[in-house]
Parts: sequence; structure tokens; C-alpha cells
Amino acid sequence: MSNENPKRLIVELCRQFYGLGWVSGTGGGISLRVDGRVYLAPSGVQKERIAEDDLFELDDAGNVLRTPENPALRESACKPLFYNAFRLRDAGAVLHSHSQNALLATLVTRGDVFRCTHLEMMKGLRGVGYHDMLEVPIIENTAHECDLERDMAGAMLRFPRANAVLVRRHGVYVWGRDWVEAKTQAECYDYLFGAAVRMHELGLDPAARP
Amino acid sequence: MSNENPKRLIVELCRQFYGLGWVSGTGGGISLRVDGRVYLAPSGVQKERIAEDDLFELDDAGNVLRTPENPALRESACKPLFYNAFRLRDAGAVLHSHSQNALLATLVTRGDVFRCTHLEMMKGLRGVGYHDMLEVPIIENTAHECDLERDMAGAMLRFPRANAVLVRRHGVYVWGRDWVEAKTQAECYDYLFGAAVRMHELGLDPAARP
Amino acid sequence: MSNENPKRLIVELCRQFYGLGWVSGTGGGISLRVDGRVYLAPSGVQKERIAEDDLFELDDAGNVLRTPENPALRESACKPLFYNAFRLRDAGAVLHSHSQNALLATLVTRGDVFRCTHLEMMKGLRGVGYHDMLEVPIIENTAHECDLERDMAGAMLRFPRANAVLVRRHGVYVWGRDWVEAKTQAECYDYLFGAAVRMHELGLDPAARP
Amino acid sequence: MSNENPKRLIVELCRQFYGLGWVSGTGGGISLRVDGRVYLAPSGVQKERIAEDDLFELDDAGNVLRTPENPALRESACKPLFYNAFRLRDAGAVLHSHSQNALLATLVTRGDVFRCTHLEMMKGLRGVGYHDMLEVPIIENTAHECDLERDMAGAMLRFPRANAVLVRRHGVYVWGRDWVEAKTQAECYDYLFGAAVRMHELGLDPAARP
Repeated sequence: MSNENPKRLIVELCRQFYGLGWVSGTGGGISLRVDGRVYLAPSGVQKERIAEDDLFELDDAGNVLRTPENPALRESACKPLFYNAFRLRDAGAVLHSHSQNALLATLVTRGDVFRCTHLEMMKGLRGVGYHDMLEVPIIENTAHECDLERDMAGAMLRFPRANAVLVRRHGVYVWGRDWVEAKTQAECYDYLFGAAVRMHELGLDPAARP
Repeated sequence: MSNENPKRLIVELCRQFYGLGWVSGTGGGISLRVDGRVYLAPSGVQKERIAEDDLFELDDAGNVLRTPENPALRESACKPLFYNAFRLRDAGAVLHSHSQNALLATLVTRGDVFRCTHLEMMKGLRGVGYHDMLEVPIIENTAHECDLERDMAGAMLRFPRANAVLVRRHGVYVWGRDWVEAKTQAECYDYLFGAAVRMHELGLDPAARP
Repeated sequence: MSNENPKRLIVELCRQFYGLGWVSGTGGGISLRVDGRVYLAPSGVQKERIAEDDLFELDDAGNVLRTPENPALRESACKPLFYNAFRLRDAGAVLHSHSQNALLATLVTRGDVFRCTHLEMMKGLRGVGYHDMLEVPIIENTAHECDLERDMAGAMLRFPRANAVLVRRHGVYVWGRDWVEAKTQAECYDYLFGAAVRMHELGLDPAARP
Repeated sequence: MSNENPKRLIVELCRQFYGLGWVSGTGGGISLRVDGRVYLAPSGVQKERIAEDDLFELDDAGNVLRTPENPALRESACKPLFYNAFRLRDAGAVLHSHSQNALLATLVTRGDVFRCTHLEMMKGLRGVGYHDMLEVPIIENTAHECDLERDMAGAMLRFPRANAVLVRRHGVYVWGRDWVEAKTQAECYDYLFGAAVRMHELGLDPAARP
């Protein structure tokens, strides 16, 4: 990845995620951390039309090193959530999606853990095997995105093997060592959330061992 | 937006909305109002193939300033509905969608108000918070689009905080201060309509506080 | 349309229909008739990859005037069905879709007529108003496509106002005076079939007057 | 096909399959066999971004003739499954999809055979007619993809007319004499799996003769 331009990647990936229905209505996005530098999208912009010049550059402590050319742009409200993954998991990329699959998975799940098992796509997640019981913590949503920071960090500490945190009635955060792992895992989680909701509609329990 | 070409934007957005399933079968569209000039698509044309030369230019009172090159083209039947938003809300852009999400939301809702609450995407709507009860008025459809004008205006006056009016068995009108706000809100409303219908199928009430 | 190239149009439209899920697995397609000449796709080719040189040119009586460059290509098995619309309705374009919306609409409908009413998209169909009861005849499928010719013709004569014939467990044929009308109507029908199936799932009757 | 570049085809088709939702999260893919040479994608790469230089070239016995430029790439774990189709059926192309339609079809089917009948899209499958009972064997998934080899081969021998094998809670393998037939059949199977799941939801039995 050293020879890839992180800003161009963010622009490209945001457009792709828009096509997947993950970042409509300016929601969601992705942040990359390469060689100690964090690249962050601004708040409330249309993700499929974002430009490289719209991005912020920050250091590992969250200090802004470079602002976008447009002075009206503010940092994404997801910033503290993204930094949870950078700090607690040494992530190289964090992705936030408002996918309806994630939303509905939090609505059909009772309790604060999404569970499923014996689905091939689980194998696309780091450290997860086909016979495992996949567990993704669900935290409750808040009026302001920044208020999720502590609950997300708490869930990450309680579920050290999870690479995602669901937010009830909201969406999901997924991270990885680099953008490839973050995106791959985000696609696998999204597939599993969608399958679980469909199984629920078909009267099947995604957490039941066959 | 001053440096953007409104005609090119309409052409681009119509193509994007076609991809979202909002303007199939020549239905739906978008009208922009920039510097006192209104840009309007013609009636009954394929929105994903519209050209800049197909658009009408009008003044704030609805008088035609410039007609399309093709003399066979007539103004969109949505014109009086679009002007409701220009006049009553000083909108800079109004969008009309036949999305199945909007259609089905009007079919599963009893009464004349769509309601939902505690869904993150509500925060993409101007003046709406996560804990609010979102209300979108629903008016009954008529045989001719122009006959909706008065009912739509009435609903806008009764629901001064709403930025959209649903039309039963038809679709939705959404507006904003400019095209970015109109499109962002349209995506958020569409997401919420879709989520509400799915919740309905899953036996969940989108208007119930959790 | 006189200045449009019918062969290029067919290539473009087939690609678009593939994106809509209407012509996957080489099924479905479109035939145009311009100035007494009919343009027809070959049988069993991938519609999103069809080339202008793959098309047949025929006269109004169905005689081949020009064959594709590739001698292995045979005329589409839909030919007699397309000619039904050319002969009985003087159509300028006929479209055949395997859309799941059409398929499922024939499966949830008892009897041999699909009906719906009071849906805005009906107004995109020639001669149909919002308060009308839309009727689309359904014929039973056969082992060989050519065996549908007589039943389709019979349905067209019994339903002189319909611009489409559904084929049970198969798909739909839609036509129009030219490609624009055929495509517009095909999109409206498909939307209505999809809405009717969803209404069925939601416990609503698409043929019930509200 | 002799004048088509197999590597470019794999790159193109993987991108197309990603758009269809068949190969998200690095899962799934396609392998071609042309003139005694097999072209294979590497394991665990994003299929919509694969490059020609990422592909392996092997001989009919599975020996690697040419490795990708990037030495970190390993052969796809699907290799022995793809070779089942090359060896047992003399296939020219094999495709593996994680489509939700395939996944859900294996979940709603009791027993180890998926069945459907009287659906037009069956006619896109080699040797299958409209009145036939289509049978696709379902094998149980394993923790490691290579462990499927024997069960898949067994299913292929028991169902000599099938051109696909479903893997429970996983996806499907589909093959054909060349890439065109493999892709065409994969689209038809996927359509049929999706239709069967929807019929199941609508209370209809896809294996019941009408």
C-alpha cells in the first residue's frame, strides 16, 4: 500500500461504498492511517462526490496537520470513533456504514450481541472460523456521534476478538490493519448481517448450530 | 454552487436518481432555482437520457424565459408542486421521486402522517434530532398531478418543520435550500421510508420509542 | 428517432436492461422496427455484450434481409412473439423481460389477468388513468417459445387496451409505438409488478380500490 | 474464444460478478481453461480490483506454470474444486459465487437436493427443459475449502446432468464448456435460486408442478 495515494483511495472507496448503499445521505465514510498520518473526510458531505482536497490530515494524537482548501469544511463527527480503532487496535483503516443490513441486524437482535455461526463468509473475518460463534457487540445509539466514543471503546475491550462494533438503530464501525482488510471485513460483516435478517424473516435462527 | 452549471447538474442528478430507482418510466425529477432563475425538466422524458438543451428556464413567477430546442417538449406536470417549495419555503431545489420505498411507506401507514423515531439517518434532515418524532405529511393522490398543488401547500403549512410531502400511492416531494441539501434529505427520507417498511415486515413499529 | 441508429440503440438498451435484471442468462431482449425494417437480436447470446454486427435485419413479413457476420448466430426464438406486436399493434419496438418482478407477479396472481389500480405509475402507460383498473393478460408458458405465438395473439385481441402480455412462470412482453414508449411502458409495468408483489407480502390487495 | 485473452476476461468477469453481489469480501471467483492451460485467481484478493498480473497459470494436472508478479500471492483455495469440473466434466470454465440467493436457497431447502420446475429460466441450462424437475445437489460445508473436494466430486457423479453443486451455508459452483456457457448457466441458476427463495416466502413451492 506504500505506493498508493491514501487520499485518492478514500475518494474511490467512498464512491464504491455509495454504490453499495453504505454512505447515502452524507452518512458513513472511511478514514485511513498510513505512516503515522491519518486521513479523514469532512462532516456532512456527499460521499460519492468527495474530492481529495476535501480531506483532513491529522497526526496520531488527533491534531490537524492540514485542512481542506474549503474553509467551511469541518472534521467528521466520527473522528473519535475512528481513533478508537487506531488507538485500541492499531488499525490502519476504519470504516463506518449506515447499511440497511447493519441497521436491521441491530433491530432483530435482542440483547447487545449480534451472533451467527456456520456461514462461509465468517471466514473472511480475521481469526474467525466456520464453526465459531461470531459475536459483534451492539452499543446503544446517542443523540450526538461523539457520545458513542466511550461505549464503543468499552465494547472493544469486552470483545477483543471483534473487528466491528454495531450501533443500534444506526449502523456499524469496522476496522482492519489496512484498507484492504477493513474493506474485506466490512463486506463480510455486511453480507452476514443481511443474511441474518433474511434468515430471521424465513423463520431461521442465524445463531443456531445446524 | 455559484460556479456550478445548474443545467449540467440536473442532467447528472437525473442519471444518478435513475440508478437509485427514483425516476424510472419518465416519472420524478428535480428542479433547481439559482439566482432567481428556475430550471425545469420537460414532461414525460426519460430522465436518465435528458440533455441540457431539453430544460426550461423560468422566472420566480413561473414565466418561461427560455424553452428547449425541441419544440415538442412541454413543461413538467410537477411545475406547480415544485413552485410550492420555491414560494412557501424559499427552496433552492425540489426533487420528486417515485421510489418504491416512498410508495410502500404510504401504503403501510394508516392515517395521513408517516412517523418514525430513534433512527440515526433522521439526523441528516434539517432540524431533526435522533430522539424526535419525525413527521412527514401524506396527501392523497389525484388523477392529475396539478390537482395536488393545493393539498401539498396545505400540508406544508400544517407541518412547517417537514422538508418533504408524501403522496399516497405515488411518491414523495423533497426540497432543500440548495441541491446538496435537497439531495441529502431525499436520500435520508428514502432510507427511512425503506427501513420503516422493512420494520413493518419484521413486526416492528418505526414510530415506537425503544 | 429517424436520426438514431437502431442497431446502436439495441446494443445500448440491452446493456441497460441487463443492469435492471431483465435480460440475465441470455434471456429477454428488444426488437426495433424502423421505416419498415426490423432489427432483431440473435438467440442465446449474452445481452450485455451484444454487438451491432450480431443483429439480424428483416422485413415486415419476417424475411431476413441481412444476417450477422458470425454465421453461427440464429434468429431469436422470440421472433414470432415480437411480430405479434408489429402486426397486431403496428408497434415500433417490442421488449421481452425475465424480470423477477414480472415472474413473481404471475405467481401471486390467481386467474389469467393481473390487475392493479390507484397507483401513480399506471399513468405512464398509454391510455391508462389513475382511477382505472389496469388489466394485463397472463398466458400460460410452453416448452418452446414459438408455441406462445397463438396464445399471445389471442390475449392481445381479447385485451385491446393492454400494451403488455405476461407469460406465467416466464416474464413479460411489452411494446410501444417506438423504443421510447416501449421502454417507458416496460419500466412502468415492471414497477407496478414489483409493487404488487410487495403489497401482496404486506397483506394488501393491489386490485382493491382504496 | 480463441482470440480472447483469458486473463483479461477473468479480470472483466470478476468485476461484473462483484456488481452482481457474487464475489464480495474476496470470496468467489472464476477459473478458465483454454488450450490445456488453466488460469486461476489468487486467494483472498478483492475480486473487483484483480489485475491480469495477479493470476496463476497452471497445466491440466494442476502444476503451476507461471506465478503472479507479486510473490505474496497464493493460489485460490478453490483450486481443487475448480479442477473437479475440469477433470470430471471437461469444463472450460468454473465459477464460484457467494450470492445470497444461493446461500438462502440452501437454507430453505430440506435434504440435499435443491429442486424446482416449470420456470422459464431453466431453459438457459444445458439439457434442461421447462417441464423437467431441475435438481442441484447440495453438499455440506466444511471448515476448509479444500475438504469439499471429495464431496463435490461425489455429488457430480451422483448427478451427472447437473452443471452446478450448491454448498450449504456457503454458495455454489457452476461450470460450462467455456466461459460463456458457465456465466450464462450461473446467471440462470442464480435467478432460479432467488425465485425459489421468494416463492418460499410467498408460500409457494418451487418444486410443485403447477
